[in-house]
Amino acid sequence: MNVDPDLSPLREAVASAGADGYLIDDDATDSDQRYVSGFTAPDPYQTLVTDDGVHLLVSGLEYGRATAESGADTVTRRSAYDYRELVAEHGPHGAKIRMLEAFLADRGVETVAVPRNFPTGTADGLRDRGVAVTVESEGVVEEIRATKTDWEIDQIRRTQRANEAAMARAEELIATADIEDGTLVRDGEPLTSEFVAEEIEVTLLRHGCSLDETIVACGADAADPHDRGSGPLEADELIVIDIFPKDKETGYFGDMTRTFARGEPGEEARRRYDVTKEAFEAALEAIEPGATGADVHDAACDVIEAAGYETLRSDPSTETGFIHSTGHGVGLDIHEQPSVSPSGGKLEPGHIITIEPGIYDPDVGGVRIEDLVVVTEDGYENLTDYRVGLEPVVE
Amino acid sequence: MNVDPDLSPLREAVASAGADGYLIDDDATDSDQRYVSGFTAPDPYQTLVTDDGVHLLVSGLEYGRATAESGADTVTRRSAYDYRELVAEHGPHGAKIRMLEAFLADRGVETVAVPRNFPTGTADGLRDRGVAVTVESEGVVEEIRATKTDWEIDQIRRTQRANEAAMARAEELIATADIEDGTLVRDGEPLTSEFVAEEIEVTLLRHGCSLDETIVACGADAADPHDRGSGPLEADELIVIDIFPKDKETGYFGDMTRTFARGEPGEEARRRYDVTKEAFEAALEAIEPGATGADVHDAACDVIEAAGYETLRSDPSTETGFIHSTGHGVGLDIHEQPSVSPSGGKLEPGHIITIEPGIYDPDVGGVRIEDLVVVTEDGYENLTDYRVGLEPVVE
Repeated sequence: MNVDPDLSPLREAVASAGADGYLIDDDATDSDQRYVSGFTAPDPYQTLVTDDGVHLLVSGLEYGRATAESGADTVTRRSAYDYRELVAEHGPHGAKIRMLEAFLADRGVETVAVPRNFPTGTADGLRDRGVAVTVESEGVVEEIRATKTDWEIDQIRRTQRANEAAMARAEELIATADIEDGTLVRDGEPLTSEFVAEEIEVTLLRHGCSLDETIVACGADAADPHDRGSGPLEADELIVIDIFPKDKETGYFGDMTRTFARGEPGEEARRRYDVTKEAFEAALEAIEPGATGADVHDAACDVIEAAGYETLRSDPSTETGFIHSTGHGVGLDIHEQPSVSPSGGKLEPGHIITIEPGIYDPDVGGVRIEDLVVVTEDGYENLTDYRVGLEPVVE
Repeated sequence: MNVDPDLSPLREAVASAGADGYLIDDDATDSDQRYVSGFTAPDPYQTLVTDDGVHLLVSGLEYGRATAESGADTVTRRSAYDYRELVAEHGPHGAKIRMLEAFLADRGVETVAVPRNFPTGTADGLRDRGVAVTVESEGVVEEIRATKTDWEIDQIRRTQRANEAAMARAEELIATADIEDGTLVRDGEPLTSEFVAEEIEVTLLRHGCSLDETIVACGADAADPHDRGSGPLEADELIVIDIFPKDKETGYFGDMTRTFARGEPGEEARRRYDVTKEAFEAALEAIEPGATGADVHDAACDVIEAAGYETLRSDPSTETGFIHSTGHGVGLDIHEQPSVSPSGGKLEPGHIITIEPGIYDPDVGGVRIEDLVVVTEDGYENLTDYRVGLEPVVE
């Protein structure tokens, strides 16, 4: 890990909350901790940020790797606090509280700020032993994470390369399928959402990425943006493919969506595709110096509403039309800051965001087109290199 | 999900803590919530257990699926508490606290018990609004989860079938490699840990499973049980393969380890293999009615110590020999209750545990043999159907 983040906004927030340090107590699933410490481990570990630096507390098993790989200024083993003896006397939880109490005291921390998702058991345990614990409620680490360093941009670019390979495999399967009785067929068997998803995932694995979910949704399935899709893919229907892989080594995500159709999806589906593409392009163009996420979202809504479709802006209760926001930040989490929605604030160089308008209706199906871009001083750079087109082709 | 768990021990713990309900506020990464609610979702949701039943609070996007798929007695949408309006007025965090306050009040909950990992931001927010929040510190849900229902045993069995297919692929690659200058070679290229791991993962994907990490460690790498391994696999060296996949649909894990060697690993390596196998068999035999996890661990230590190797029992500071515990529970988490270690309590029918002794030394390499078994009334049933043998063969 080489993020080397600028944590000064966190230190300022901690100081202004009257705290002496910021403590994270979580495991590999916590991206904030991974970001701040430059380290990740399957089992829980702790990261303390003080004015002096970033301090890691890890098990003996992780000590060597933490020392070699992490971005922390100091790494301490649990055994430095006689953890094993404490467990024998007080059980694992009591031991952890006492160990953290000593760890904080060693760093001169009497009042500690913690993230909102800090475990209540740890917070209450420390409080019971006289350590003041306050919740940092502004989400400062998330805010810092929103602006990517050059190194981070390169990692996300790399994930997006894998994503392009996976999308190409999916497009190839759809492009080369036979059509029998209105169903896509491969080697005499129906081509299913599940098979295309499996091929996407295998391709990603071959490129060092993993993902737990892929969306390959056809027809009415695709009209629900959260439906992953299932069953045979049909001709003459819109097929939405949304891939959001994570690099297994760095943890950084990519994100892309394309919509395809074999056969003749019909005039209304084609019109919706064209309107979505126009909204997609308008949103990209709206990414300019000084623009907010809300401005970019509005640009997409303008196009979609002008074409006569509902958006959540024109009708907050609509269940058809453009029923989600235009985009979101992408990094160590697939959904992170900033937001490209009505509440989206000013876009800053280094923000990495998706642009993904869509139009949905169970009667027609769904259309969504999504690229991943980085905001720059002048506008944006598109991190996605993949053709936009409804007819699937084999490159 | 069809776990249909018996939550009466949780209800008793909640009542004896003077609370009216048990609240979980987490996302898909929390296995306790998945277990209790029979539901999982990528975004945070809340589960409340009262004497009346299990109550889910989800976003509108998840409502349909939660109603259809979850095991909850009631499912409520956030919009029932005017969540969107609350966000506009109080921001997302303030809105969540007010929504939960109303949700708890609707169920007659004034004092709520929460798990240790409950977010401090939510706990403190509720406390600020007059809801009493106490931490349930015994880990009752984890304890309930330790005993699997028949349905759960079937899910884990299914994951272990996929695991066997992946291990067979790895063994085949090692068995069929050529040997050139002491290195395993395939199609003229060195056969690497990374390639074998990738083939394992692709095989698992083809069987509906995923995993983020696999261990394929050769020589000195394998002497560190946490080293995932890297680089070319060598002849005349021990190769440890440890696979712990998760079924993508059900979330249940499997776990298995085998150790192989091509060429001649030497007399000492062979002796360690035989001793490990003997310890493995002794530990399995020790799983009998009334036995504790500690008894089973002792049975493995007895064999290894009798053969002249150190264990953490004979020397707590040893860095060679048998340097971990004999096993752990497996379920929705890869490491869960019960423990097969010096602190392991009584084994009960329905416990699913690994048996995985090993002997390590950087000079000789590592050996580990691991099966996954379910404790029964009479002893155990092995959920693993895979040959134990040092020479790799192609079935």
